[in-house]
Amino acid sequence: MPHQATLEIATRGRGTRDITADVQGAVAASGIRCGIAHVFVQHTSCSLVVTENADPDVRRDLETVLSRAAPDGDPAYRHDTEGPDDMAAHARTVLTGESLTLPVGDGRLRLGTWQGLFLWEHRAGAQRRTIVITVLGE
Amino acid sequence: MPHQATLEIATRGRGTRDITADVQGAVAASGIRCGIAHVFVQHTSCSLVVTENADPDVRRDLETVLSRAAPDGDPAYRHDTEGPDDMAAHARTVLTGESLTLPVGDGRLRLGTWQGLFLWEHRAGAQRRTIVITVLGE
Amino acid sequence: MPHQATLEIATRGRGTRDITADVQGAVAASGIRCGIAHVFVQHTSCSLVVTENADPDVRRDLETVLSRAAPDGDPAYRHDTEGPDDMAAHARTVLTGESLTLPVGDGRLRLGTWQGLFLWEHRAGAQRRTIVITVLGE
Repeated sequence: MPHQATLEIATRGRGTRDITADVQGAVAASGIRCGIAHVFVQHTSCSLVVTENADPDVRRDLETVLSRAAPDGDPAYRHDTEGPDDMAAHARTVLTGESLTLPVGDGRLRLGTWQGLFLWEHRAGAQRRTIVITVLGE
Repeated sequence: MPHQATLEIATRGRGTRDITADVQGAVAASGIRCGIAHVFVQHTSCSLVVTENADPDVRRDLETVLSRAAPDGDPAYRHDTEGPDDMAAHARTVLTGESLTLPVGDGRLRLGTWQGLFLWEHRAGAQRRTIVITVLGE
Repeated sequence: MPHQATLEIATRGRGTRDITADVQGAVAASGIRCGIAHVFVQHTSCSLVVTENADPDVRRDLETVLSRAAPDGDPAYRHDTEGPDDMAAHARTVLTGESLTLPVGDGRLRLGTWQGLFLWEHRAGAQRRTIVITVLGE
């Protein structure tokens, strides 16, 4: 039987938030020993990524890389209803992805030592975000 | 029992096409109430993305962002057999992804209000594309 | 019953390695006829992609595109503990993704004719990488 959980997460504007323990908790609650965990964010201006969990500079540098690929307030954008970070946030979300799928083994996420799961807020201001976690397997 | 459906989609060249209703239809046909829906495109020059479904300018601006990351006819490309959009299309596909995984709850896709599912054609000309939808759960 | 397999892969530094047959082998071993195969790399400096499997120039050009989006030794990076390719490798991994999900039908991966699965090493030097393959369905 699949297990599905919904989480509300408050962000403080642009930046990453570690959600590894939240997803690990949903896997534990599912009772599923072997299978996959799927994490999905119900928004188009924040994303979910797996990246290095030790040095916070890695996530700052990721911000730098994305800010070049999809700058705030680019004069070429037509969509700017909600400000200079509006279209940039949509583009950064498409480039990094709104969902993650992770392997589950022995009742736990099978992550590498240096892997963490992060919600990446791309809007400048604080937001409330909804995440859906689905665990499948046996 | 997993449910699998194959769809043929005609594109009119570069741009996005909303496939939300198609995927929603496959979920309904599956009879699955809780689980995941996986959508996969069997090509290397078009992609599948979740993005804002209200203002078409968002998708135009996404095109602008990708056209900078992987421009047509870049002199640095070695692969140009099928024209200036050939390699650009492969690169844009890798940057945005050939598959989507979505949560299913209460027998429906659990998308946010502003989320739509799009097939993104990266070749300049019209193409026929094949999509495979797999629904898993109970 | 889900099937899970772990693979060790030696890379020879930056570049792609075809893992299609490895994943196809895990699908065959699973005995699963219809469902999905999920492939996950337990690292934050190499990624997994689906791309054109015929002309190796495509993968060389993909390298060119990524080397512009996330150059080695960028003076803006703060994280450079392991050398000029360290942060570039993390960024390229986030842009291209650490996992793949593929449809399985008739007991095989349902890939398009030109699709191959590749492990993409982003570190300059040779590495040992661990991949987890999970097959779900019936």
